[in-house]
Amino acid sequence: MRPDPERIVWLNGRFVPADEARVSIFDRGLLFSDAVYEGIGILDGQMIDAPVHMARLRRSLGELGIPEPMDEATLHAALTRLIAENLVTEGFLYLHVTRGVAERDYVPPEGLTPTVFAFTQAHPAPLADRPPVPVRLTSHPDLRWARRDIKTSNLLGQVLAKRAAAQAGSDEALMVDVEGYVTEGGCTSFFIVKDRVIVARPVTHDILNGVTRRAMLVVAKREGYRIETRRITLAEACAADEAFVTSASSYIEPVSHIDGVAIGADAPGPVTRHLRAEYLRRVRTST
Amino acid sequence: MRPDPERIVWLNGRFVPADEARVSIFDRGLLFSDAVYEGIGILDGQMIDAPVHMARLRRSLGELGIPEPMDEATLHAALTRLIAENLVTEGFLYLHVTRGVAERDYVPPEGLTPTVFAFTQAHPAPLADRPPVPVRLTSHPDLRWARRDIKTSNLLGQVLAKRAAAQAGSDEALMVDVEGYVTEGGCTSFFIVKDRVIVARPVTHDILNGVTRRAMLVVAKREGYRIETRRITLAEACAADEAFVTSASSYIEPVSHIDGVAIGADAPGPVTRHLRAEYLRRVRTST
Repeated sequence: MRPDPERIVWLNGRFVPADEARVSIFDRGLLFSDAVYEGIGILDGQMIDAPVHMARLRRSLGELGIPEPMDEATLHAALTRLIAENLVTEGFLYLHVTRGVAERDYVPPEGLTPTVFAFTQAHPAPLADRPPVPVRLTSHPDLRWARRDIKTSNLLGQVLAKRAAAQAGSDEALMVDVEGYVTEGGCTSFFIVKDRVIVARPVTHDILNGVTRRAMLVVAKREGYRIETRRITLAEACAADEAFVTSASSYIEPVSHIDGVAIGADAPGPVTRHLRAEYLRRVRTST
Repeated sequence: MRPDPERIVWLNGRFVPADEARVSIFDRGLLFSDAVYEGIGILDGQMIDAPVHMARLRRSLGELGIPEPMDEATLHAALTRLIAENLVTEGFLYLHVTRGVAERDYVPPEGLTPTVFAFTQAHPAPLADRPPVPVRLTSHPDLRWARRDIKTSNLLGQVLAKRAAAQAGSDEALMVDVEGYVTEGGCTSFFIVKDRVIVARPVTHDILNGVTRRAMLVVAKREGYRIETRRITLAEACAADEAFVTSASSYIEPVSHIDGVAIGADAPGPVTRHLRAEYLRRVRTST
């Protein structure tokens, strides 16, 4: 699909039509993937958990030594206007920060001005007010680098995994490390439920500390669920009572199949349905 | 350093000034690092080993399922003109191919037109006709993904390693895998010499199959050196008689220090000097 040229995007402080938004071929984001990003859910025209995304963005920038391009209030105001300009009620807001433009050299010079852009993607149909559609996962070796905790644009491992999943007729990839443990989905966090216990992989350098993951775990604790934080093998995932994935734009989605194996009795299972409803209720009462 | 705006670059079939060369923010090269590249040495105004680089580019594109953007003769003619337009006698030619522009979605749609660009970098001073300047290396954990054999723009692992090396006062990084074996330099292939035997890490998915590496090994064989293909620990590298790195733009460079430890008696050692001279002679008689 071609990017919608009517859309207004935000690039280096200006609101411009999508087809006029261009960056130099010498941008380090393009040459070295020297860039970080955030993906923020939009519901009822509002960003979900914007301060948590901003904190994670600051952390990602800090890990790479990229200066913060502007203060958070200015950034928040621009993103809010971007959502309004594009009349997005429900969807996704994408924010990208590169180290900037320089002659090609691996070692970045000091004093570059970061390139900053953002755009919205409206969901073609509302998701939050519909019953969730169960997703099918296909496993794939996790090829990614050692710092998956930094949300960078080095996403080719995810692209290859998600392309293979799509070719297998699935909706999402389930990435598995060299020891046989599930890490996460191609662009989602992954969880199982067994005997009403929620099992989550610990947050280390091996996975992203998902914003929706964190919000879901807060909701789960409040609702009295026991949470086990440990690694999960692919076999254990397939034998779970329920499995679900979380992401900023799709909230909490039940998993119906992994590699063709049906998960539990019927997706969505009761715990997944409960968590999704409570998560959305929390989003709608706190934003 | 700002990119020289006077330089002529090549972008999607057109020769344009460097500061007019821009790509869409929706280019998958920028959003997903869904892109491959080649770096080709230029000596005496000619590309070094152009057919070998073209073959590796085709392989990289094939591994990612990106279609070849044009036939090799057209590509070769454009790159030759680019070198002439910029009057480059000795330097580096950079060629980049992304999967193209599309609405942001990990799974790439079929039928995209690849984005193709190229630019030159002239060496500030001639390298081939000067005695080689020994380089200092600083070791760094190899953080990269599992498919280092594909020459992609997912280069943040190299950027972090080379930045750390520069901060330690070194010229290049020496990346070391989780088992303690050297993989390669930040943007070079790495070799040691012990008792006149050249030791080279085997080419697997763990390292790039360097074009200069291959040419050097052909020269070394012809000159009667024994070559051992096996992994090298960091400690073994530090205890070598000689160490050297190879790259398209810097040919063969002696290593004087690794993590502050002097390598051998005096860099460049006799084998490194001999290989460099023979490599450059081969380049100048075969192009």
